[in-house]
Amino acid sequence: MSLAASHPLRAHGTSSSRLVRALMGTRPEVVPVWFMRQAGRSLPEYRRLRARAGSMLDACLDPDLASEITLQPVRRHGVDAAIFFSDIVVPLLLAGIEVEIVPGRGPVFARPLRTGADIAAATRIDPALVLERGERVADAVARTTGELAALSHERGESIPLIGFAGAPFTLAAYLVEGGPSKDHLAARRLIHEDPVAWRSLVEWLAALAGAFLVLQVRAGASAVQLFDSWAGGLAPADYRRAVLPASAAALDPVRALRVPDGVELEHVPLVHFGVGTGEILADMASIGVDGIGVDHRVSLRDAVARVGREVTVQGNLDPALLAAPEPVLDAAVGSILADGLAARAHVFNLGHGVPKETDPAVLTRLVRTVHEWRAV
Amino acid sequence: MSLAASHPLRAHGTSSSRLVRALMGTRPEVVPVWFMRQAGRSLPEYRRLRARAGSMLDACLDPDLASEITLQPVRRHGVDAAIFFSDIVVPLLLAGIEVEIVPGRGPVFARPLRTGADIAAATRIDPALVLERGERVADAVARTTGELAALSHERGESIPLIGFAGAPFTLAAYLVEGGPSKDHLAARRLIHEDPVAWRSLVEWLAALAGAFLVLQVRAGASAVQLFDSWAGGLAPADYRRAVLPASAAALDPVRALRVPDGVELEHVPLVHFGVGTGEILADMASIGVDGIGVDHRVSLRDAVARVGREVTVQGNLDPALLAAPEPVLDAAVGSILADGLAARAHVFNLGHGVPKETDPAVLTRLVRTVHEWRAV
Repeated sequence: MSLAASHPLRAHGTSSSRLVRALMGTRPEVVPVWFMRQAGRSLPEYRRLRARAGSMLDACLDPDLASEITLQPVRRHGVDAAIFFSDIVVPLLLAGIEVEIVPGRGPVFARPLRTGADIAAATRIDPALVLERGERVADAVARTTGELAALSHERGESIPLIGFAGAPFTLAAYLVEGGPSKDHLAARRLIHEDPVAWRSLVEWLAALAGAFLVLQVRAGASAVQLFDSWAGGLAPADYRRAVLPASAAALDPVRALRVPDGVELEHVPLVHFGVGTGEILADMASIGVDGIGVDHRVSLRDAVARVGREVTVQGNLDPALLAAPEPVLDAAVGSILADGLAARAHVFNLGHGVPKETDPAVLTRLVRTVHEWRAV
Repeated sequence: MSLAASHPLRAHGTSSSRLVRALMGTRPEVVPVWFMRQAGRSLPEYRRLRARAGSMLDACLDPDLASEITLQPVRRHGVDAAIFFSDIVVPLLLAGIEVEIVPGRGPVFARPLRTGADIAAATRIDPALVLERGERVADAVARTTGELAALSHERGESIPLIGFAGAPFTLAAYLVEGGPSKDHLAARRLIHEDPVAWRSLVEWLAALAGAFLVLQVRAGASAVQLFDSWAGGLAPADYRRAVLPASAAALDPVRALRVPDGVELEHVPLVHFGVGTGEILADMASIGVDGIGVDHRVSLRDAVARVGREVTVQGNLDPALLAAPEPVLDAAVGSILADGLAARAHVFNLGHGVPKETDPAVLTRLVRTVHEWRAV
């Protein structure tokens, strides 16, 4: 499959954006910065919009609303990329799995996949449904990239949209448990209790996640991030054996998309992220990704030493520091930017999502600090 | 302060128990094994007892009940040590802090320590109250060690009691938030927002934890474990600067206790444990502890390489494997025991607490597997 020439990578020049260049391994004059969960709860304009809308998942499937929420932090903070406002359970919802997002709790499934029979029934669902039923998602992406093109023109810097999906393990952690859990024990038990069922589950989830990524890229996303938020909870040997192959499979369909002629990319840039992944960072980087997200529990310097210079690092300010006095925050940011110089390139980000209590002015100022920073 | 000659380290020979010898760095003929949370929810005899009792904290402060619950897994599984049935919030309760343990949720505090003023008020409480009001705890410990002496006699192997306390950061994570939280953000923010208040809080908590440990050791515990369950959630530099000194201070009062004459120990053996601590293991081992607990997210081989041969390793079977078919479980256990040979000595344990769904027969069989294992 080939992306149309009207894709933002070509038509709006996002292939030469700071983000895409950094992910390709070229160090832009300015370190690009965006924030995980920049779209959402920390912004008063988001809370106003959501108060008028229905549930979280209704908002994700409302093209106007999802697009507007995606754009809010780009306008306010001047970040170098938009991250699509959606949720990792949206591909499951499109595939017909009954799920809701309970405020203050997280995704809750009407029918947890507890047994081999549950899994056999679910995995009979055709992952292609995500593409067939994804019109509203594609519409939201297309509206967003249209608006980003206008914003890019105003700013004189191309602003790409990042698409995303939850990785198979993280999706399975919710599905097997039926909702959020402290240590994802039900999923981690299943790996050992019924390895055949486990494998069919994560392969199916990889196909769903892959389809969700393709949907976003075809509609205009210029890069994608695979979130394996809970991968760090696994024993490293189990991660390598029972999880990593499925994560690689989730990215394959994106890698197979041909970029438009005239765009010098082998594929749409791929980023892989998880929390508490110090022991498995090199594994996560090994599946042909362009960027590796690093959480704040590993020093960025150590992360670079582990992943080498074949991959760009992204991260890794502790969100707790957003509450610190300015000099403390600035010193931490300076230290991360200096550590990032050891990598082939660096995309500044938090080590985890923006906390809902964050003062938005702190993020706006942080973007300026990163943009004004220069290696001495 | 000196421990009386009637202390189990001398009177009941627990200083020559497998556990204490292994923690001192002498490899016993058999690898000792115990399980975090072995006393409690996974045992039907525990659930029967608790159904008759009041709240969790009532049970902790009932000498008969706490002692009986502590002994149940020793009788059933044949483990090499008892771990005292209590809770990390008990020293706070003894100091007069209002707290309850809400079933299915965890410790909840009536008045979270949110501000510098909250912290100033709390830290005016004299930590010595833990010792003054700890009679029921001391009584439970004394009854337990009396029973353990009888059990040791039957078994022909000395069975020590391990005392424990929550480390200052983990206690602060609950106190500042007011209860359990996903990523302990309120406490992690406070470190940066108000470092002076933070320091006074963790120093006070270190004194409380230290007093709780001393209470247990004086009453008959032969080793102690400091649980810093959530330390792995911190950026490593913050852990070293803002947390580790307080953890060291919590252990100092135990280190200062003189062991009875005729017992060849410099101090009561000290173990330090946390979850997701791969990046800070060497730091955790650096504060003069005898054993370092390793969770399953780091391979035991890597852990040994990081902490060196000055400390005994404890761990690290993934609790998820307790649900695996026997050959899978046995292979994992064999691999951990083999990795443990690289350490100066090894105490077998899980990487985290026993899950409540665990089949007790699996644990009993696991103890036998570990005891029958010999290095080839």
